[in-house]
Amino acid sequence: MKKSINELAFFGGTPLFDILLPVGQINIPEYERFEALMNDVFDRKYYANHGKLTLEFEDKFSELSGMKNSIAVTNGTVAISIAAKALNLPVKSKVIVPSFTFIGTVQALTWAGLEPVFADIDPETHTITYETVAPLLKNKNISAILGVHLWGNPCDVERLDKIEQQYGIPVFYDAAHAVGSAYKNKSLASFGHCATFSLHATKVLQAAEGGVICTDDDELAEHIRNIRTYGRTKKVNDSMVFNARFSELQAAMALLSIEKFPEYVSNNKHRYLLYKERLKDVPGVSVIQYDDSMQGNYQYVVFRLNEEKFGISRDLLVEILSNENIIARKYFIPAAHKSVPYINMECSKVKLPNTELLTQEVFQLPSGQIVTDEHIERICELISFIQQNADAIKENLKR
Amino acid sequence: MKKSINELAFFGGTPLFDILLPVGQINIPEYERFEALMNDVFDRKYYANHGKLTLEFEDKFSELSGMKNSIAVTNGTVAISIAAKALNLPVKSKVIVPSFTFIGTVQALTWAGLEPVFADIDPETHTITYETVAPLLKNKNISAILGVHLWGNPCDVERLDKIEQQYGIPVFYDAAHAVGSAYKNKSLASFGHCATFSLHATKVLQAAEGGVICTDDDELAEHIRNIRTYGRTKKVNDSMVFNARFSELQAAMALLSIEKFPEYVSNNKHRYLLYKERLKDVPGVSVIQYDDSMQGNYQYVVFRLNEEKFGISRDLLVEILSNENIIARKYFIPAAHKSVPYINMECSKVKLPNTELLTQEVFQLPSGQIVTDEHIERICELISFIQQNADAIKENLKR
Repeated sequence: MKKSINELAFFGGTPLFDILLPVGQINIPEYERFEALMNDVFDRKYYANHGKLTLEFEDKFSELSGMKNSIAVTNGTVAISIAAKALNLPVKSKVIVPSFTFIGTVQALTWAGLEPVFADIDPETHTITYETVAPLLKNKNISAILGVHLWGNPCDVERLDKIEQQYGIPVFYDAAHAVGSAYKNKSLASFGHCATFSLHATKVLQAAEGGVICTDDDELAEHIRNIRTYGRTKKVNDSMVFNARFSELQAAMALLSIEKFPEYVSNNKHRYLLYKERLKDVPGVSVIQYDDSMQGNYQYVVFRLNEEKFGISRDLLVEILSNENIIARKYFIPAAHKSVPYINMECSKVKLPNTELLTQEVFQLPSGQIVTDEHIERICELISFIQQNADAIKENLKR
Repeated sequence: MKKSINELAFFGGTPLFDILLPVGQINIPEYERFEALMNDVFDRKYYANHGKLTLEFEDKFSELSGMKNSIAVTNGTVAISIAAKALNLPVKSKVIVPSFTFIGTVQALTWAGLEPVFADIDPETHTITYETVAPLLKNKNISAILGVHLWGNPCDVERLDKIEQQYGIPVFYDAAHAVGSAYKNKSLASFGHCATFSLHATKVLQAAEGGVICTDDDELAEHIRNIRTYGRTKKVNDSMVFNARFSELQAAMALLSIEKFPEYVSNNKHRYLLYKERLKDVPGVSVIQYDDSMQGNYQYVVFRLNEEKFGISRDLLVEILSNENIIARKYFIPAAHKSVPYINMECSKVKLPNTELLTQEVFQLPSGQIVTDEHIERICELISFIQQNADAIKENLKR
């Protein structure tokens, strides 16, 4: 451990770690199992188009999520565009969506010909609520609400359902972070008309690239399948269809992860709890609380940093950590309404105080299989050291 | 071989083959080589986001195509949508495109917010020409021409280039079938502003699913890269961006195929020439001519059937062959302008006599690595037998 601030890599010292500790899961599937699955694919000479492994994966995902339909697609962003099209939201209509989300959420709406109306979020859960959404319903031409279960934390699902009943505006969810998660023992996939998931390599359940759309509505599922495959189901008609098929390569990867899912989640929870315990007494640092009402996958270890109490800014902390090979990440910079192309559009002219605050305060620390208990102990020790020496660090910076 | 028409499986006899002989390449990459590449991916724990194998594949594709930029994307349909967006074609503007093409070509334009104006094709090359395109330029709001190098046969590239010079309307190409092909020793990838390719499992160069966009225009390439990855290049701005990344799994597959490409093409050409030779004296059957000016990949063995000369219709021939486990395929049924959703739109109200004729006459016979010389000999013998017994078959059907 560092004995003085001069030993910080930021000030020219040796980095604490000699490997990069990343944010994101990077769970490492077992190669032998992948090999067995791929051997089978090569034997059958069937590599794409809803093959045996894809169908098997979709069944297992339905089981994991307690849903009737799981439709595997190219990636999690395309999943949102397809969901919007399957819901038949009119081109140029408006969809309420948080600005505090990965930019892909909003870009997917734009690809589907829709316009965002940005909602603020609750500062504790980082998700949209009845209170942040209801005032926006006075906007003209709102066709839907797209909630984001950010970090796997559920939106205000029960009261958003009520908005649907009250106003007749459909709700659907970007559940990219919420694979296998539940709220009050009810699958997060089951809220709204449908929910979309990401299987990107950095997710707890990964297919290198990939996405899934879940719904219990069989008719909606038929439209999703039709849009995914060139309008080929023949059972329904859709005006915009294309190719978003999932290949047998993706399915082989995803099957590895789904078999290991309970183990990955258990390890994630262990890491989350260790970070939480070790940082609980550091002034100004608070970890995101996963409410007792939810069963999460703990794939993200998300913190807020209060500059006044901690002594230095979130941005400076992240820079100091990066120099030690601790790849902490700031979220979301900028928020969607401050990003191209939205910043140049009417939709950016909104007041989102909680979003603005969180973009200053939120960061993630390294997570996933690569990160050991010892890494976490040393990271937390270092953060505590930085807090204790905050004034000296700032002083040193002025020189 | 069949001794009488009663031995045809269509009339209750035993099928000629006990395995299905498919259309499409189904080239079988070597598992050992795939294993070595994937072992490396698992060792590096890097599965997505423009990894080492993807960059290597893009370089090799550029080499094969003689182009400066090859950008690997999710699939060949998405490649067309991205190309249209990168060319900045205005939403609701019109793009001239053949109706005699795989429906995905047109669907990709629709996803990009564009409207098709259907052009007829030359009955020999099955592609659009100066003559079929020029009269359509009187339509209002034409923003581009999307040619399709169908079956790898070049469009009328030189004279379409002249249209661009004359009218200032950009030309780009769907070269899904034309990987590694050339016209007058000039890469087909080099005509128009950009060309898009498909790496679907049934193509001569396959990534299970996949696509590539080639261009020598560095600025256009930068837009394509930006659109592919959430607008993240920061060098350019685009209003519609999303995720169309190529994974390391796709790259591993594609590298296998590109290494074997010359061998696959040589085998394809052998099969094509054998079919051509064996069917040359059968009345009413004509194989598509690959012009001497082109260097093709011969991945498709495409025929036309003249019902009057052959004795029975293309549709009946295909049905008889299917019963023998010879999976011949009819193209394109229906043509794009007769397909949902276009059939219900203004754009369907066009006269396309050559397209109409070819949808009645064109079919493919089994191709790719699975198909042996002996298979081809027997298939051709059977087709000759059917032609010689055409009247008896029709008679038998009436009973």
